[in-house]
Amino acid sequence: MRENCGIVGIFGPKNIPKILYLSLFSLQHRGQESCGIVFSDFKNINVYKGMGLVSEVFSKFNFDNYEDKVGFGIGHVRYSTTGSPDIKNIQPFIVEYKGKTYAVAHNGNLVNSFTLRKELEEKGTLFQTTLDTEIIMHLIFKSRKNTFIEKLMDGLKKIKGAFSLVIFTPEGIFAVKDPNGFRPLCVGKIENGYIVASESCVFDLIGAEYIREVQEGEILYIGKNALESFYMPKNKISRCIFEFIYFARPDSKIFGKSVYIARKKLGENLAKELPFLGDIVIPVPDSGNITAIGLAEKLKIPFEMGFIRNHYVGRTFIMPFQTSREFNVKIKLNPVKEAIKDKDIIVVEDSIVRGTTSTIRIKELKKAGARKVFMAISCPPIKYPCFYGIDFPSKEQLIARDKNVEEIREIIGLDSLYYLSYKGMISAMDCSEDEFCTACFTGNYPVDPKSFKKKEQFENERVSCY
Amino acid sequence: MRENCGIVGIFGPKNIPKILYLSLFSLQHRGQESCGIVFSDFKNINVYKGMGLVSEVFSKFNFDNYEDKVGFGIGHVRYSTTGSPDIKNIQPFIVEYKGKTYAVAHNGNLVNSFTLRKELEEKGTLFQTTLDTEIIMHLIFKSRKNTFIEKLMDGLKKIKGAFSLVIFTPEGIFAVKDPNGFRPLCVGKIENGYIVASESCVFDLIGAEYIREVQEGEILYIGKNALESFYMPKNKISRCIFEFIYFARPDSKIFGKSVYIARKKLGENLAKELPFLGDIVIPVPDSGNITAIGLAEKLKIPFEMGFIRNHYVGRTFIMPFQTSREFNVKIKLNPVKEAIKDKDIIVVEDSIVRGTTSTIRIKELKKAGARKVFMAISCPPIKYPCFYGIDFPSKEQLIARDKNVEEIREIIGLDSLYYLSYKGMISAMDCSEDEFCTACFTGNYPVDPKSFKKKEQFENERVSCY
Amino acid sequence: MRENCGIVGIFGPKNIPKILYLSLFSLQHRGQESCGIVFSDFKNINVYKGMGLVSEVFSKFNFDNYEDKVGFGIGHVRYSTTGSPDIKNIQPFIVEYKGKTYAVAHNGNLVNSFTLRKELEEKGTLFQTTLDTEIIMHLIFKSRKNTFIEKLMDGLKKIKGAFSLVIFTPEGIFAVKDPNGFRPLCVGKIENGYIVASESCVFDLIGAEYIREVQEGEILYIGKNALESFYMPKNKISRCIFEFIYFARPDSKIFGKSVYIARKKLGENLAKELPFLGDIVIPVPDSGNITAIGLAEKLKIPFEMGFIRNHYVGRTFIMPFQTSREFNVKIKLNPVKEAIKDKDIIVVEDSIVRGTTSTIRIKELKKAGARKVFMAISCPPIKYPCFYGIDFPSKEQLIARDKNVEEIREIIGLDSLYYLSYKGMISAMDCSEDEFCTACFTGNYPVDPKSFKKKEQFENERVSCY
Amino acid sequence: MRENCGIVGIFGPKNIPKILYLSLFSLQHRGQESCGIVFSDFKNINVYKGMGLVSEVFSKFNFDNYEDKVGFGIGHVRYSTTGSPDIKNIQPFIVEYKGKTYAVAHNGNLVNSFTLRKELEEKGTLFQTTLDTEIIMHLIFKSRKNTFIEKLMDGLKKIKGAFSLVIFTPEGIFAVKDPNGFRPLCVGKIENGYIVASESCVFDLIGAEYIREVQEGEILYIGKNALESFYMPKNKISRCIFEFIYFARPDSKIFGKSVYIARKKLGENLAKELPFLGDIVIPVPDSGNITAIGLAEKLKIPFEMGFIRNHYVGRTFIMPFQTSREFNVKIKLNPVKEAIKDKDIIVVEDSIVRGTTSTIRIKELKKAGARKVFMAISCPPIKYPCFYGIDFPSKEQLIARDKNVEEIREIIGLDSLYYLSYKGMISAMDCSEDEFCTACFTGNYPVDPKSFKKKEQFENERVSCY
Repeated sequence: MRENCGIVGIFGPKNIPKILYLSLFSLQHRGQESCGIVFSDFKNINVYKGMGLVSEVFSKFNFDNYEDKVGFGIGHVRYSTTGSPDIKNIQPFIVEYKGKTYAVAHNGNLVNSFTLRKELEEKGTLFQTTLDTEIIMHLIFKSRKNTFIEKLMDGLKKIKGAFSLVIFTPEGIFAVKDPNGFRPLCVGKIENGYIVASESCVFDLIGAEYIREVQEGEILYIGKNALESFYMPKNKISRCIFEFIYFARPDSKIFGKSVYIARKKLGENLAKELPFLGDIVIPVPDSGNITAIGLAEKLKIPFEMGFIRNHYVGRTFIMPFQTSREFNVKIKLNPVKEAIKDKDIIVVEDSIVRGTTSTIRIKELKKAGARKVFMAISCPPIKYPCFYGIDFPSKEQLIARDKNVEEIREIIGLDSLYYLSYKGMISAMDCSEDEFCTACFTGNYPVDPKSFKKKEQFENERVSCY
Repeated sequence: MRENCGIVGIFGPKNIPKILYLSLFSLQHRGQESCGIVFSDFKNINVYKGMGLVSEVFSKFNFDNYEDKVGFGIGHVRYSTTGSPDIKNIQPFIVEYKGKTYAVAHNGNLVNSFTLRKELEEKGTLFQTTLDTEIIMHLIFKSRKNTFIEKLMDGLKKIKGAFSLVIFTPEGIFAVKDPNGFRPLCVGKIENGYIVASESCVFDLIGAEYIREVQEGEILYIGKNALESFYMPKNKISRCIFEFIYFARPDSKIFGKSVYIARKKLGENLAKELPFLGDIVIPVPDSGNITAIGLAEKLKIPFEMGFIRNHYVGRTFIMPFQTSREFNVKIKLNPVKEAIKDKDIIVVEDSIVRGTTSTIRIKELKKAGARKVFMAISCPPIKYPCFYGIDFPSKEQLIARDKNVEEIREIIGLDSLYYLSYKGMISAMDCSEDEFCTACFTGNYPVDPKSFKKKEQFENERVSCY
Repeated sequence: MRENCGIVGIFGPKNIPKILYLSLFSLQHRGQESCGIVFSDFKNINVYKGMGLVSEVFSKFNFDNYEDKVGFGIGHVRYSTTGSPDIKNIQPFIVEYKGKTYAVAHNGNLVNSFTLRKELEEKGTLFQTTLDTEIIMHLIFKSRKNTFIEKLMDGLKKIKGAFSLVIFTPEGIFAVKDPNGFRPLCVGKIENGYIVASESCVFDLIGAEYIREVQEGEILYIGKNALESFYMPKNKISRCIFEFIYFARPDSKIFGKSVYIARKKLGENLAKELPFLGDIVIPVPDSGNITAIGLAEKLKIPFEMGFIRNHYVGRTFIMPFQTSREFNVKIKLNPVKEAIKDKDIIVVEDSIVRGTTSTIRIKELKKAGARKVFMAISCPPIKYPCFYGIDFPSKEQLIARDKNVEEIREIIGLDSLYYLSYKGMISAMDCSEDEFCTACFTGNYPVDPKSFKKKEQFENERVSCY
Repeated sequence: MRENCGIVGIFGPKNIPKILYLSLFSLQHRGQESCGIVFSDFKNINVYKGMGLVSEVFSKFNFDNYEDKVGFGIGHVRYSTTGSPDIKNIQPFIVEYKGKTYAVAHNGNLVNSFTLRKELEEKGTLFQTTLDTEIIMHLIFKSRKNTFIEKLMDGLKKIKGAFSLVIFTPEGIFAVKDPNGFRPLCVGKIENGYIVASESCVFDLIGAEYIREVQEGEILYIGKNALESFYMPKNKISRCIFEFIYFARPDSKIFGKSVYIARKKLGENLAKELPFLGDIVIPVPDSGNITAIGLAEKLKIPFEMGFIRNHYVGRTFIMPFQTSREFNVKIKLNPVKEAIKDKDIIVVEDSIVRGTTSTIRIKELKKAGARKVFMAISCPPIKYPCFYGIDFPSKEQLIARDKNVEEIREIIGLDSLYYLSYKGMISAMDCSEDEFCTACFTGNYPVDPKSFKKKEQFENERVSCY
């Protein structure tokens, strides 16, 4: 239950909707609830959005119509934040201004939305959604500046928190990253143009070449006369370290670094610290895979695929009948009796949030014949909520909030439990500790979240369906 | 191809979505492209919208959830105005203002949208749709007045043209009719509450009792403390006479009068004026039915159902293959050879717009064996466009614009053609000529349309799909 | 709740699926539950079937693929007989025999299915459906004769009852009518070929020319070398008179006669017999329309459309919430208060089966202000079940089974009730009484139904869904 | 592109459709084209079938209706054999015989279908499908024996080839395995009853206990009075070894053995034979995973997940636009540049069929920076077609048919290629060579396939859609 989003922006090549589709398809792991694109062939503007997976939403889109037309566009995949998923909140968020169309797609979370929204409403501004994105739009167009880039810079001054944005304007696109640089966003070169995307795995699929990460505080314009950069005032860099641990695809580069290499080092560092030994190492697939390989290799004990994943259970899969929580966990992964029977097993998991899923899995392993079950976690305990775009459960539900490791071990039913040390985690990243946001482990928030309010606190309950 | 819309608002009873559904179902003939509802059970607010017929859009709505809850809500059925139908334009139009939800559904058309929109955009207002409704909303909330009713009256001052509105607010609903009273809107009593709707046929279906027509310029509030009326400044009354001739269901009362009686009198008046006689009278179903009955009865010649309507061709029916215009006309109505063979036939049609459909139908009648075909039209020639909510084709396409009756007769292939006189039409209404808008016949526009611009002239081409 | 079916067969022209589609579309009133087609372009054979209306089932069919190919094919629309509608029972029924495809579509009902099925099962024949059509197929191919026409004649010898069939074979189609000729089937000429269909309204739509009715006992082959007729042994002719009263479209010819003319005469004959008079005549639309016109004209009292039909309620329309029987009747037709208030009304209805629907309608009329309500029925009381293809309710449910006219009048709440006399009905047909099956009125069954068993009596309950 | 199927049969517990659903869900990897179930609650029989994944087909099935009812039933998942997928071929295949319902689901392939079908047709038997299953049904019911079990044994005598069957009868189910035992089928104990399924992973999910493999030639009846076994005459045992190499899930037991253990041994045996060494071992996921782990462990060189699988591309996923073969391969797996750059890589693949996919993957690896790419295959070259249920391409398309290893290596673009030896493969199975069918490697067919004809050779082209 961890929220995030994925964004993409493209300028230049032919067949823009196809490239947007493939890009969102590559970013699907960052958001499966809804998706949408806006694109222009320099003449007409089209919007296509829907609830569901990229492949579902676009199953009836007619890509042939755009095969030969050059253009530009942006796209978004999203998780829902709070309450029921709602069609009105599908991004990109689009407005008409003086007969022209503008759109924004956002990955991240503002900490001062509540205050900004109140101020705008006082002046008679109407809202259609509960999206931060809508606030950003109003701020831009309320600016008294003349050009769009001036209005944009003026508007962005007022917002605080995490925001990697792609902005669609009549002439081209902007890619924006907040001065802290919480969320990843990278630039690539594509035939006849450029592309920005949350992760570099997008570039592999569409045949683009990785250029660099968008810089913290950078506003990158991509239009007919190529790239142009503007900058917001500097701030402390604070990249989300949890993107490496859990979110990003292992075949991606984010923040300029390979996720695969980082995960493997997390495993190696775990090996150095681990206070127990077992007969085999097994990952909780797929997020634990690479770390487990690193761990097993370093420990020189066998790596086994002790859980087999059912590939027909997606994150959005719904059983057509009532099922128990236990069953929902069980249907995703089945332990391989023959691989684990009578063995002491080290299970590698990326993190423990609530602990409920882990409890069920460990029980399954024991039932399948494991002698002892140890667990190695690739980061320290998560004790603090995230205000920058990851939707951990409320702090009351975080198991490590007020329980120590021994207590957690007992609840989950483990024979041993070990969390990678803070130092071990950082050292796996191969760069300075200062560059990361590690607030969920430490409580040191790089941007003050005290004015933050959960969206459900400042809106009435409203659900829209189409 | 004539646009209009239907609206409904309800306050008080249980199971609001079910009553809204049935009301829109009864108003389906006023708009088949899309529909939507917004309703509240005094706690949660729900929105349900979609492209298509009421029965299609709501086929998966769970009505059971609301069976026992009292509440209020509004609904809308719509035709598309211009360009591709677009999901973002489905009404009711909904906004958030200071954490509360407001919504409007609109039947009619403003003549000064273009000017109002430009003014608002100059002040930084963003638009999401091309709806007049969105303009109305901004005007209301830009008002510096304090209470909603004050803001509403303030906002309404600025708009000109035809507007029958239902407005959803946190506490109850408002029904508004412009000072000219172009479009119908009536009030009924329902168990534990009240209902307003475009036509009274709604009341028959849901078991409400007809009270009266909403007055010209009236702002009727329906909330917990029952009905309350406010008034806009007076203006010349100008009810759309074409509602009687074509739009409304014959079992409805509109503007306080029975449509059935009016149509029958149109037929009787035609009988008095008709310069030719035939063997039988046949209507073009269904809009010509009642007029034809009145005509035949008065002329004392037989009434026959000479065209049989295929009930499986709805207005929104689409053939799954390419068809000719002729074929599309033919599949709807089939002449009954045995009823018309070797006879002189008087065909009764409500009006002639472009003349293309009539041309095909007359050819079919002749092919089926009719000796002579005369046509009696239940109103004078339509020579002028409507700016108040009916989407006649552009004036260049109106056949009567620059052709006289004899020329039209020849184009359509008739042996004789007669249009009911202006006087004959008015006298069928059984009230003063002054009460009607007859601009499409006379060119006397009660509200100056010169600042009117077609929506396609002030927006770029944009299409949204979900 | 009266079952029937519609069939069509075409040989020769291009674009066979399109012509089949339009033919079934014209026959939609004969069956709305499911439909299907089988066709050949002399090379490949295609089958397309589905539950629902023709327009729904074929909405995704690609007609373009067949535009230029000549071929032949058959089609069927159906009502369900008993129990739940079931996809396995969609016609045409298709088999493979020695690597070739044969198919049959059937309108009618066999009286000896049960016996035939038992005999076949004794010899090891397996069944996949509960269709009579499947029995016919087995009988044909169990024949030891050599050619298909011999096998066909051999097989048809064994079946008894009503069967209008179209049969698809590798080289062409057969149209078959049982020796009694219960159900209509007519032949038309189409460009480059021929067409057979249940009613002639099909020919009007597709531009075919009516030739003649298929004769009783005729087996008509339509293949490359044009038409060829074979004959089964003669029998008493017994055409279903109820087709004229209720089923067929008024713009059709059936059994060589105009349905419109027949219905109008039913009205005129009613006028001669009617023992009461009223202020106006109103039909129960649409089956009562033409008869009511005939009646009003003859009586010289006004004809009024006192009920307005909601065109968005099809026979297959389902409300998305629980509704009462009363409501379901009410939503279809709404009385026009202004047309009926304070009047003595003669309501014209085609027939009374159970009486429940009529009871509700009469109550509505009274509630709408009618002073007195009389009812005129265009045929005598229905007292006996039909074994030849019309699915009246079981005899226990036929209101006229054991109630006299006065009792029925009282149950329905009428001020007077009159049924057209047997003689009056026959004389409207303008031909000899001997030519009709009138068993539902008289109990004189032209084919002995005593071995008949309802399908639910000889099969277990089984439902298939796809 | 390798066909197979999965079957399941259950007797005894409550909520049969739910258990069938979960069983088919667990067997989804054995067939994704269509699925179906037949079940009885000892009173009513229901059939539910459809094209698509289990989760799609059953998304609207109402499981609640059966929650408390005990019963029995069978189910099937399938790949298509030839030509277009066709709804009439969805299994289970169902017939009515003497008013009772029987159904069969089949995994395998008969070699004498063509001959049997011709014989049956000569006697007037009609066919509805091209399924072997239909032939089996006719053979059973053509038997002159009295009881069903006698008829069954009589019918089975005539069929030759591979057939694991579950049969639904009015009183219970039969599980049948051909005397050679080509396809797996195992029995489990479930609360209040028994279950048979193609693979034991089914039992883990539904909480059943594995009992044993159904024996070669066994006919196992499961009814009210528990289990009863009958036997066909013995024959040479010949279990499909390819089930271990590719088809079965690694967490399953088939033929009484763990697939996981077998695959790991394949990897270990490869390690013993491999004539080259590399820096890392990477699997082609997911079928190569376990073998690669075994290989890497034995070789003591690092195992890496060098390909990342996109979890949103299922086997049935269709791009909404035209794509190249290369692209379709690429979208499934993305190489991790950082893991493979400048390394000598040993890629582990289960087998090479046509070689086209491998060629593209190797190119991708080189493009991603691999220095040298070696490939290790977990079985010998596939040179001969399978007639027992696996749909390899025609022998002309098998790359190993007429090319030696060196030629294949060059075509695929490898630096080295090694196939596991026949002996190495057999020894991994840990039992006698005599127990397996290895015809695809050796050409030694345990059942003579010479009368076999591809289905497309004995039927005309016919496609059914619903």
